[in-house]
Order: sequence, then C-alpha cells, then structure tokens
Amino acid sequence: MNVAAIVSTERDTVAAGVTTGNRYPGAPVKLARERLQHSRIRAIAINNKVANVAAPDGIADARAVARAVSRIAACREEEALSVSTGVIGWSLPVTQLVDHVATLPEHPCSVVDLARAIMTTDRYPKVTSSRSPRGPIVLGVAKGAGMIEPNMATMLGFILTDARIEPHTLQEVLTEVVNATFNAISVDSDQSTSDMVIALANGATGTPLGRDEFYEALLPVCTHLAREIVRNGEGTSHEVRLTVSGIADAVRARRIGRHIINSPLVKTAIYGNDPNVGRLLAAAGDAIDTWDPDRTVSADELSITIGETTVYRDGAFALNGEAERLLAEYLRDRAMEPAGVSVPQPQPAVDIAFRFGSTGGETTVFGSDLSYEYVRENADYRT
Amino acid sequence: MNVAAIVSTERDTVAAGVTTGNRYPGAPVKLARERLQHSRIRAIAINNKVANVAAPDGIADARAVARAVSRIAACREEEALSVSTGVIGWSLPVTQLVDHVATLPEHPCSVVDLARAIMTTDRYPKVTSSRSPRGPIVLGVAKGAGMIEPNMATMLGFILTDARIEPHTLQEVLTEVVNATFNAISVDSDQSTSDMVIALANGATGTPLGRDEFYEALLPVCTHLAREIVRNGEGTSHEVRLTVSGIADAVRARRIGRHIINSPLVKTAIYGNDPNVGRLLAAAGDAIDTWDPDRTVSADELSITIGETTVYRDGAFALNGEAERLLAEYLRDRAMEPAGVSVPQPQPAVDIAFRFGSTGGETTVFGSDLSYEYVRENADYRT
Repeated sequence: MNVAAIVSTERDTVAAGVTTGNRYPGAPVKLARERLQHSRIRAIAINNKVANVAAPDGIADARAVARAVSRIAACREEEALSVSTGVIGWSLPVTQLVDHVATLPEHPCSVVDLARAIMTTDRYPKVTSSRSPRGPIVLGVAKGAGMIEPNMATMLGFILTDARIEPHTLQEVLTEVVNATFNAISVDSDQSTSDMVIALANGATGTPLGRDEFYEALLPVCTHLAREIVRNGEGTSHEVRLTVSGIADAVRARRIGRHIINSPLVKTAIYGNDPNVGRLLAAAGDAIDTWDPDRTVSADELSITIGETTVYRDGAFALNGEAERLLAEYLRDRAMEPAGVSVPQPQPAVDIAFRFGSTGGETTVFGSDLSYEYVRENADYRT
Repeated sequence: MNVAAIVSTERDTVAAGVTTGNRYPGAPVKLARERLQHSRIRAIAINNKVANVAAPDGIADARAVARAVSRIAACREEEALSVSTGVIGWSLPVTQLVDHVATLPEHPCSVVDLARAIMTTDRYPKVTSSRSPRGPIVLGVAKGAGMIEPNMATMLGFILTDARIEPHTLQEVLTEVVNATFNAISVDSDQSTSDMVIALANGATGTPLGRDEFYEALLPVCTHLAREIVRNGEGTSHEVRLTVSGIADAVRARRIGRHIINSPLVKTAIYGNDPNVGRLLAAAGDAIDTWDPDRTVSADELSITIGETTVYRDGAFALNGEAERLLAEYLRDRAMEPAGVSVPQPQPAVDIAFRFGSTGGETTVFGSDLSYEYVRENADYRT
C-alpha cells in the first residue's frame, strides 16, 4: 500500500470538491462531502489498494486517518480528509496507516512522487500545471486507469494553487471544469464509488484570481489530466475523441456521446483498426433511442466523420474500398501499444464526429477502445 | 450468403411483429413495419451476410426480394417481406438474390435447416416448440449472437403456429412476451438496426387460441430462444440471470438490471470467475444514479446475492475468505467453453439478485460475461 499526504501550511487555505454520483459512495467520499461544506481543508491522506467502501466502520476509520494527517498540518481534525481507492469491501489497516502517516513529514516528496504514490494500475504518473498570466500556478495530479466514467469513476484528482480564490468561486469553477473534462471521459462506463477531485487554494502568492482567470488556468490542467486518464486506461490502445453536434441540450448530447463511445462493438472495431461505420450508425441509433425518448433529435440529418472523411450522410454510407483502406490506416497510425508499461508515445486521438443537425452546440467526450488487454487486466485484477 | 424462405399456403394466415427501437432501422425493418399494419404476411425471404441498412436504394431492393418470395406463396406482393442481417452499409446482390429465391421451392427444408440457414456468427441453430393443451403447436426459430440488446439487437425470431388467432391478440401477446424475453437480454448493449420478431398464425388446425392460451404457449418458446441467444453470444462463457426486486416501476427495474449486467467490469469479473462484490455494488450505484435521477429507489436497503449466498447487506460486505472461495467455485462450475464451436453443454446460469427493497415486483434480465473471445470475434469480424 502506498500512502501520501498533501498538507498546506497556509492557514487561509480554501478548498472545494466534486465527488462521484454513484449511489453507494465510500466512506472517504461521505467524509469529504461533509467537511468540504466549510471550504476548509488543509490536510489530505491518500492511500491505494483499499477503497474503504462498504467496509464495517468505514467512516470511523476514515476519521482516524484524517485525524492523523491533521496533526502534520497542525490543523483542526475537521480540516483533514482520508482519500482511498482500491478494492471495495476491504477495511483499511487503520493502526498501521495512522502510524505510517505520522512518519510522512520525514519524507517530503515532489509532486511527481505524489502522483506516483497514488497510482494503482496506472501505467505512469499524471501531473501537469499551468500558470496564470497574473502569476499564480495551478498544479494538478490525478490517478485513474479503470472504472473510469463520468462523474469521476475510480479516479482522483488534486488541484493545488497558490492563488487567492474565493471559496464559492473555487467551487463553481471546479464544478464547471470537471463537467467538461473528467465528466466527459469514459473508459468502462461505470462511475465508481470513490471518485473525487479536490482543489486547494492556499493564497501563498497573495494574488487573487477571479472567476474567468481561474477558469482559464484550470481548464488546460483538467483537460490534460482527463485525457491522460483515458490514454492510461487499462488496456487502452486508441484514445477516441468523439464530437456530438446538432443537439440543443448539452447534457443529452454528452449522454449520447458517451453511449456511443461505450458501445463494446464500436470499441472492439476501433481496437481492430476497422472503420466500421455500421457499428457507429447502430450505436448512434441506439443512443438516441435511449437518451432522446421524446424524439427531439432529428435522426434524418446525421452525418458521421472519421478523421477528415465523411463516412455516412443522407441516410447512406459514403465510403468506397479505397477510402476504407485509408481509414484503416488512419486508425493504425493512432494506435498506442496497449501492453506497454511505460509512458505511451503522445499519439493523436481518433477523431469521430456525429452531426445530428446544424443547430445546437458541440460537445466532446473522450473514450477508449476495448482490447484483449482490458479483459485480461480486469478478469485477473484480484486473482 | 444463405437464403431461406418461410411460406404459408394458408390464405387466412395472420401476422404480427415487433421491430427494433434503433433510430436508424434498416430497409427490411421499414418494409416490415409498413406491411405488418395489415396483419397479412404469407411469405418471408431471409438472408444473412448483408443487412441492407443504410444502403442506397435499400427499400427498392427489399421490395424486389419480397416480390420474388411472394410468387412462391402465390400471394400479393404486399403480403411478403425481405428480412436481412449482416454487415451494415452494403447493398443486397438483388439480381442473384431474386433468381435464387425462385429456386427455393426445389429445396424444401426442415425448421432446423431454416434455423441453420439464418445463422451468421451463431454457434448452433436455435429452434424450439411448445404445444398448447388445446392442440396447436407454437414453433420458434431465432438467430442472434452479437449486437444483442433489448429491443431485438441483431437478432431475428420467427414464431409459427397452426392455431387460429385474432390479429390483435397475436400482436398484443407477441409484444408482451417479447418485452419479457427478447427485450430482457443483453449481450453487448446495442440494439441493432435490423432486429425483428415476426409471428405467423396460419390457422391450419382450425383451433382458435385466446389471449391467455396463446400467451402460455408462446412464453416458453420465446424464453428458451432468448436464453439460447445469450448462451450463444459471441465469446460468452457464462450466462448470467440477474434479478432486480424492490423497484416499483418494472421498466426502470429492467433498465437498472441491464445497466448492471452491461458493466464491463462486472462482465470481466464473471469471466474471471471472480465473485467481485465491489464491482456489483459500484455498478448498482451507477445504475440507479443513471436511471433513477429523481431518487425514488432507496439505496439503503440493498442486498446482493450470488447463487444462494448473500454477499452484501446493511451497507457492508457479508463475505469471508471461505465464502469467497466457494463463490469462485460456483462461478467456475457455471462456465461454458467460450471457444467451443458446437452446442455448449446446458449449463445453469450464474444467478445474481439485487434487492433494493421489500415492495415492488421482480424483474429478470439475462446477460453474459466479457471474454477474450468476445474481443477477438468483434475486433476481427470484417477483417
């Protein structure tokens, strides 16, 4: 088990968070929701291996670990969190964990070490930063490689900034950016019981950032981390960027996009470098039947594009043998090595666009293909 | 390409049908919806390999093939259908198909031959029958092995009976039974563009069957065929029977059940013979967040049972090492050989029950696990 801590020495640190929508959240999520209400968090202990979900006395265990980390920050117990991911149902080894947390100040670590410490089946640490033109830095680390779906999946994100930000601005911007980034990715369609993104603003620079300034700095950080989580997905060999346009309601558009990119038949086709337009069309027809029961989305105007090539329009395929061969090549070009253990090459995503009409905005979701490796990792995970 | 025909020589044959909800139905589905309105169908041509979906002039092609088969039955053109499954986007080889249909009467075949002729990636033909205590027989054949989800997926079913049944009774009972059987199965979560179940009652025995009598005879036929489709799913190594109870709304209960059984993490765990309660819990929490946004379903009373063993209740796991070992054995016992090419042994399904409360009915859905074989078959399907 890896244990790490994030501690702020600044008394005026403010905090915000977004947690999973899963109806069976773990004890760490429940504790975080309670304590984030006051926007004051200065110490976070993070462990992997055991998720502390559906374990007897899970809340008491989370409180005990939080208490231990609060001592490092010399803050109140209510200003500390215990954050866990790992196997559901197991209990935290509280005594050892509390003892270990006390020793953490002896081993100060870099943010990359932090990103590495919170990994489970992640292939590589995920960390990035951006600097506001006004000076402050926004730093982000994340973990996540499986059970990745919107509303956080088994993923954790920590956003740290030395800007001075009003608590309600921190929360509002975090929620908005998380919806457009971490909540727009899907690896295996279940949001997990443990996911959260926590942001701490310690104000150390003394420089205040307003709503828009913070948004500009936070968006690239969360976009990068969210895409890294997809690229790092268990057994992922293609990252897919799927754009849905022509649907008035953005929430519905995102649902439809995720439905399509979660289709196992679409995912296996992409894994096989097969530009299988039929499966894209079938998944779109199933998605709008499911998420547009009142039929506000027009089915008749759909066009589908892979890369730069329109493959379906006016109710019929727009492909020939040569175009199909080029598309297969396009897919092969964008394949990563799924079995690789190191950082995959920065490969461009497979771009697929569904245009349901000419009005309404554009929504982007990120997903992945479905490989042998995925099945292997997930069938053998605990055994 | 295999081509088969179902022809009724009885002039008073009545017909009913249920077709896919997919918003991009193929030409055969559109033609069937139009022609079934008059409840008179006496001839059906069926081909595999090419689905006649999103192909230019698909409707004209379907009409031409239907016209050819209508000549065999000596019925009106409007009393004939052309039914296709296979690759989406390709056009039917109409000329050859029309010529071939004309030769079919020279090769009368058994119902098992019919079931075999309509197979695509099916491992074995699916055929069954039941006899009403009043005399008439209900015969069913089906095909389907991939893109299997409710509302028919890429599956076809043909129900043939020599009872005399009123057209509206035939349609009403067929719809009801299909909802409880073919629409309660899910192999890969997309309903396809081509699915339909067509029932013909030729009245040859002269014996009328009323609503309840026909229901009693039809239910076991469709239940058997639906389960065979799951067992026969591409790469299926476990059949899963998932029961959801304690939810007032049956449609919602079925959505939640299908959401859980479609979770790739649940499916891979079952494939790995891993009684992974955490994934069952996470999938349930995700399912009710998705399908019960107004929170009418209580999350607090949930119990989960695998086989006879309660694995979760009162908010915590109810498992120990020994129970877990026995459950892994239970899952191994129910595994079929996914790579087998012949009829799998009649293995009992894996039983998983989710009780969300003590009131409300019980809904059953059938699904399958997710294996290497599934990925192999679906990644390499066209290549």
